[in-house]
Amino acid sequence: MITLADLPLRADLVGQEPYGAPQLQVPVVLNVNENPYPPSPLIRHEMAAALVTAAGTLNRYPDREATQLRADLARYLGHGLTADRVWAANGSNEIMAHLLTAFGGPGRRMLTFTPSYSMYPEYARNTCTEFVTVPRRADFGLDAGLVLDAIRETEPTVVVIATPNNPTGTVVGLDVIDEVCSGTEAIVVVDEAYQEFSSGPSALELLDRHPRLVVSRTMSKAFALAGGRVGYLAADAAIVDACRIVRLPYHLSAQTQAVARVALAHADELLAQVRQLAAEARGFEAWAKGRGYAVIDSQANFTLIGRFADRHQVWQDLLDRGILIRETGPDGYLRVSAGTPEEMAALRAALDDLLPTIEGTTP
Amino acid sequence: MITLADLPLRADLVGQEPYGAPQLQVPVVLNVNENPYPPSPLIRHEMAAALVTAAGTLNRYPDREATQLRADLARYLGHGLTADRVWAANGSNEIMAHLLTAFGGPGRRMLTFTPSYSMYPEYARNTCTEFVTVPRRADFGLDAGLVLDAIRETEPTVVVIATPNNPTGTVVGLDVIDEVCSGTEAIVVVDEAYQEFSSGPSALELLDRHPRLVVSRTMSKAFALAGGRVGYLAADAAIVDACRIVRLPYHLSAQTQAVARVALAHADELLAQVRQLAAEARGFEAWAKGRGYAVIDSQANFTLIGRFADRHQVWQDLLDRGILIRETGPDGYLRVSAGTPEEMAALRAALDDLLPTIEGTTP
Repeated sequence: MITLADLPLRADLVGQEPYGAPQLQVPVVLNVNENPYPPSPLIRHEMAAALVTAAGTLNRYPDREATQLRADLARYLGHGLTADRVWAANGSNEIMAHLLTAFGGPGRRMLTFTPSYSMYPEYARNTCTEFVTVPRRADFGLDAGLVLDAIRETEPTVVVIATPNNPTGTVVGLDVIDEVCSGTEAIVVVDEAYQEFSSGPSALELLDRHPRLVVSRTMSKAFALAGGRVGYLAADAAIVDACRIVRLPYHLSAQTQAVARVALAHADELLAQVRQLAAEARGFEAWAKGRGYAVIDSQANFTLIGRFADRHQVWQDLLDRGILIRETGPDGYLRVSAGTPEEMAALRAALDDLLPTIEGTTP
Repeated sequence: MITLADLPLRADLVGQEPYGAPQLQVPVVLNVNENPYPPSPLIRHEMAAALVTAAGTLNRYPDREATQLRADLARYLGHGLTADRVWAANGSNEIMAHLLTAFGGPGRRMLTFTPSYSMYPEYARNTCTEFVTVPRRADFGLDAGLVLDAIRETEPTVVVIATPNNPTGTVVGLDVIDEVCSGTEAIVVVDEAYQEFSSGPSALELLDRHPRLVVSRTMSKAFALAGGRVGYLAADAAIVDACRIVRLPYHLSAQTQAVARVALAHADELLAQVRQLAAEARGFEAWAKGRGYAVIDSQANFTLIGRFADRHQVWQDLLDRGILIRETGPDGYLRVSAGTPEEMAALRAALDDLLPTIEGTTP
């Protein structure tokens, strides 16, 4: 019987735990910003039909370049993009791994602004890139001065700006992105995992002006495809070429390419749900404000509410009522993903039920 | 317009090209050791049915631990293995990436024995692990003395031994693996990508004795699932735990878990094809020896034949006849994957057609 301590594990990994939110079976799951709407029966059967076709050559390696999928993604994104300026991978996790393998590495730094997505340090760690952070403003926003000062100070090769930011939902304006890109030779990755839920414009608009700008996206949320694991980016073709060097060949399976293309063919239907979910999130925020909660302005399909003197207790009390949310974000806040109207009603009822027991913090 | 030279690409990646054999459309494809038999209509439809079910929750993240798939893989491997001693990923590429991220990294070395699989240096490069090689014996075999001397000299944390080896098909005996494992504290990865085609025993037999031994497998060949991208390993649970730390969460999509499980449920049918393909490869070798070719003894679904004074010309001449094989391996040799009886007949006919023009080398 051996343990990890007996093995030659990389020194900086010793004591680390596998990443991940608890996978609990409860009636109302609002903890990982999933889209609550499963694919329609029509989409599911089109996926099955596409798989029957794809499976006819499953004994052969898949298209290493995922050319058709990338062309579909380019068409979806618009802005004159073409397949050679789009890259796809197994979730935006793998997109970020490709970018940091190419542009990070030993002796190099990745810079981001906290609070932000809890996977960022893992991307840096896995690629032996130093992870450096600078706090966002008190309102969780960013301005170009703050970002450029941080870049001068930390000299990163890769800067990651999430907008809408996870877990705060905060948007960074295009003027800020534009000024940052003009002021650095670093690769600037704008993580737009939740962009479809936002009413603001996409950094895709800036791509033609800034060849070191990367816009990262995912099909997990807007396309209700978290289980399908498809992330992608749009950038200059040279950045895609860098990803092609470091990707392990045939990284995207034939079934994943097939499933993603069916979802993309139904973009209109899925984006209608996106608008409904965004409205649900904004409605919940208005309700929470009305009840006296502190609410961080969000443009994503999730919301931070607070401030709780003991957020863990509130999280547990909700879980005891069959509602799973996420204990993450700034002190005293909890993150709530937008669910169906019924799920949000259940959450509101549970919060009201708990209200007499909830202690807030002084502002 | 920028080029890669304008970007902060990691210094050791500058000038590198994306890996991969040419993806050409020709009648007879015998270049990447694929299984020539597509999944049967029954398997394809079971895969579609499994996908319809899986797609019902495709809006949710997949099982991060791929528990059912790993249990199925453990059952297939036998030897008393359980899910906690099996790890699965997107192809054995990702299996090796996980192992080298955990046990390699800056300042550490991966050792293997040449000629061997052309992806090995890419795994090392991506994980910033130094790649060191020692030549195999003249007959492409390995003995424990050679391996242990190389380990003493290069001090690797990860040793990779492919058996049957790609591209030579050479088998390394279990006595050698056993002695190597007893003589080192390094992680010893036995890459059994082609084991099902071999008549020899698997290093799985040694797992209980050697907690630093990893047996790596793939569903690409024996399960005719190259397009499905499923690799896996069996090892001590502590090694699986190390992979769980470095894997990016939800690395295996719901559709990949579903497709792989259907293929595993049909192991008997698929392994019957494996035996036929092994017989096809051995038959081709006997034929080639009869024609005076040099043939490396193989236990895989491929064969190295030679020795050609100008192997590129022979490769091109075969391609001109609609037959794609692989220009790889030791000088003067070409690698041929086992195809259907019809494909092998076409290859034999083409080689006979070319024979008057083929120049050999003196032994």
